[in-house]
Parts: sequence; structure tokens; C-alpha cells
Amino acid sequence: MTQTPPTEGVYQLRVRYVECDPMGVAHHSSYLPWMEIGRTELLRAVGASYAELESAGVFLVITKCALKYRRPIKYDDLVEIRTKVDNASKVKLNHSYEIVLVQRLGETGEQVCAVGETELACVGSDGKIQILPEWLRG
Amino acid sequence: MTQTPPTEGVYQLRVRYVECDPMGVAHHSSYLPWMEIGRTELLRAVGASYAELESAGVFLVITKCALKYRRPIKYDDLVEIRTKVDNASKVKLNHSYEIVLVQRLGETGEQVCAVGETELACVGSDGKIQILPEWLRG
Amino acid sequence: MTQTPPTEGVYQLRVRYVECDPMGVAHHSSYLPWMEIGRTELLRAVGASYAELESAGVFLVITKCALKYRRPIKYDDLVEIRTKVDNASKVKLNHSYEIVLVQRLGETGEQVCAVGETELACVGSDGKIQILPEWLRG
Amino acid sequence: MTQTPPTEGVYQLRVRYVECDPMGVAHHSSYLPWMEIGRTELLRAVGASYAELESAGVFLVITKCALKYRRPIKYDDLVEIRTKVDNASKVKLNHSYEIVLVQRLGETGEQVCAVGETELACVGSDGKIQILPEWLRG
Repeated sequence: MTQTPPTEGVYQLRVRYVECDPMGVAHHSSYLPWMEIGRTELLRAVGASYAELESAGVFLVITKCALKYRRPIKYDDLVEIRTKVDNASKVKLNHSYEIVLVQRLGETGEQVCAVGETELACVGSDGKIQILPEWLRG
Repeated sequence: MTQTPPTEGVYQLRVRYVECDPMGVAHHSSYLPWMEIGRTELLRAVGASYAELESAGVFLVITKCALKYRRPIKYDDLVEIRTKVDNASKVKLNHSYEIVLVQRLGETGEQVCAVGETELACVGSDGKIQILPEWLRG
Repeated sequence: MTQTPPTEGVYQLRVRYVECDPMGVAHHSSYLPWMEIGRTELLRAVGASYAELESAGVFLVITKCALKYRRPIKYDDLVEIRTKVDNASKVKLNHSYEIVLVQRLGETGEQVCAVGETELACVGSDGKIQILPEWLRG
Repeated sequence: MTQTPPTEGVYQLRVRYVECDPMGVAHHSSYLPWMEIGRTELLRAVGASYAELESAGVFLVITKCALKYRRPIKYDDLVEIRTKVDNASKVKLNHSYEIVLVQRLGETGEQVCAVGETELACVGSDGKIQILPEWLRG
């Protein structure tokens, strides 16, 4: 792979009923799987899938995450996960995320509803830290 | 193991906020993990843990499930999962379940809110059907 | 609405990492939210959203579900939820579902991995059974 | 209520199969519901339930969360959620958490596997920020 891999990606998803809580909004824990999909799809845009990575014995484990929730996201909202590689060292991969409402029944205009960050480390199938594959570092 | 293993068990759990949906009640998919806990704890009462079973290369996979929902279960309800082994053949294990409300803020008396059934098959680490360990058959 | 609403629909989704369990396959409880999406998108094809229904005080609650699991579904599989209205009376709505693997890394051909059924009842915001809106009955 | 409410609490839970992912460990998003239970049970120790709060039109919404994952937590592990009120102002409530492995098959000794923080704001049933009930501020 001689091309520089993309360091930004956008993924749209519709908020599921099961992801919402009695307040009628997406439960705050639902955002983490969305961010996971965001970085997985960014990987897919590089031409690789995380499933293939795991088959090759390369596992990315999360070591840190942080989220700020600004506005509630509701059931059936169409949201965009905007994922960016912030930093890629030999052993760590940092992403940042914007969770953006792009379509809600009876409303117009888009809104950044939450922002987040994650840090990933690379481990082998033995669970030990290993160096990230070079192409993943961009 | 010369003792006859128990074929019935009771497990109490409190309904989590994340398990409830915008109607303010436990989402219907939440019941399946509860039933899974019910049969796992029944196994533990036999003196084994499902985690140990898996370590020994014995996996129980679900092949069927069915549920009837009679009354809503709410956030913070205390419910009892009453699990019973209905049938245990060489290759299949059938359980039935009652999901019983035992404590709700401001109410008295218990109520069967849902009933369910599952069928499990035994597979090896290669994913192929294998005969259930004898002690599991009761 | 004078058109006959569609009684069958297809929805594609990619299996999420969070939906899979230590066996490396989609947890059996993950299928229920997929089926929920299947019937929701079928509703959307009629020109209505379930979110709108709830705003209008019409709630569809699940009274029964059943699933048969034939083949495991894995992380990152592309699956199709094929939803069909089987029966629509004044107070009940029955759907059946096929969960079909349509794309897996390194495999070709599609496979029906699971089949399911649900029964829904219609309740008002007071939680009492009410008659289904006529256009929903087809 | 004239007593000073407790500002620390401990809650034990067993890691569910459904909470674990294909790496065989608790998915990183599972920790947020555990922390939610931690602060809910701390509230219950004060003599109130979050369910009652919501009935009274007081909703606590999460505005921030952060987690550091140090060691993997496995299926069937017994973990302790140690929750502490760090700060309680008129409008914000800050908690910190330790997620501690207290029992794992074949291991001895306890280990802090993750640490976390959350910030909550108080809103009314109209979704508008309101002042926290005084007894909640400690």
C-alpha cells in the first residue's frame, strides 16, 4: 500500500429504539459503539477490515475514552459519526469524533450533539502490547 | 459427580436504566440476557461455571427461543428469573423461564410478567455439534 | 392513504462488534433489535415513521417473539432482514423475518441464518389496548 | 433529611456473557451502565431511588464521561463498582469510579481494572437545566 490512507471519515446511522432510554433519548453508552463503527469504517476506507486485522492476530484495544454530551439525540434521528485520526505513534492510535445530528423529523439544520476521543493500543493474540502495523500509522 | 444436579433455580436482578426504552419499560430484547443469566446461575448451582465449560472446549449455543410478554417490566423493578430444565437429551437442552416481578415501588404482590423457552445445542471449539457432557443431562 | 401499503421489506445492516460475544458470533439477543429495525423500516416505506406514531399516542408493544437460529452470524457480516406482515387484525400485527447472510469476507452465496416471528399489540399512551390504525392493517 | 448522605458506595456485579465481545472481554461500552448502577445504588443508600426522582420530574442527564481501561475484565468476573461523589454544585454532580476485579476463576487478589469519571446535570421534565435538589448536593 503506497497511498496515504485517509485520516478522516464519515458514517451515517439511524438511532435505534433499543439504543434509547426512558428519557426518550439515546442512552449515553450507545455513543461508544457508534464511535467504534466510525473508526472501523475509516479502516475499511483504507482497504482493510478490522475483521481481517483480527484474523491476522492484530487486535486494537481501547485504553481511554472521553465524551462530552451537548444536546440529546433522539430515537430515529439520522446522525453522522465524523471520525478523525488525531495521532498515530508506534503503539497508540488516537481518534476524535463528532456526533452530528443531520436529520430529525420536523427540524432543519445540523447540530454537533457530542464530541469524543479514544486511544487504542495494539495487542497480539497473546494480549501483549505490540507495535502497530506501519500502514495503520498513516 | 454422583448427586443429581438441581433442575430449577431462581435468580434476582434489578432492571437497569440502560435496559429500558422510550416507553419507560424494559426493552423486549433485554429478557434474553436475563434468561441466559438464569440458566448460567443454575449451572453454577451444580458446581460448574459456564466459563469453565468454555475453557474445556464445551460451548452451548442457542438454537431456539420463544417469549410471551404479559405485563410490562419497569426500570428499577426487582425481578426474579425462575429457570427450569425441561428436557435434556444427548444433544439438546431445553429450559423454560418465568420472569416474575417481585418488587416495584408502590406496589405489592408478585406477578409473572413473561414466560420463555430456549433450546441449546452443544458444540465443540470447532463449531461442530457434540454430545452434551453426561452430568449436564441430569 | 388510498394505496395498499407494502407488506414486505428488506433492510441491510452490518453486524457490529458490540453485538458479538466471546464465541465470536452475534449474540442471540442482537437479532431482536434487528427485527425491530426490519418492521420499522417497513413502516417507513408506508410513508410513516414509528417515531411519528408514538408522537400521535399510538404505541406498538411486543406480545410474543420466537426465533430459530440455524447458522452463526459473525462480526462484520452484511445481513439482510427480510420482514413480512403475516397477519393484521384489529388489535394484533404479526410479522415474520428471515435473517440472511448476504456478504462475508472470503465466502460467496447467501444463507438464511435465522428465522423469526413477532406479534405486536397496539396500546395508547395510557398503556391500554386499542384498535390498530386502519392504514396499518393493510 | 437531616443526615449527611453517604458520598461513597460499593456495588458488586457479575460480568454478563452479553457484555463481552469477540476478544472474550467486557466490551468497553459495558462499563458505562455499570457506573450508572454505581451512582444509582449510591443514591438508593441515601434513601431515594432514581426512579422516584424521575417520577418527581427531576432528571439527571450525563454531560461528560471519561474512562481509562487498565486491564481487561472477563466474562463471569465478579467486579466491584466503587463510586464516589467528587463534587456537587448547584447544577452539576461529579462522580469518580473504580472498577475493581474482586474474583476471577483461578486467580487471587483484587485489581483496579479501570477508572472513570462522569458529570451530571439536572434537568426538569421540559429538558431545561434546573437546580439540583439540595439533599442531593450533600
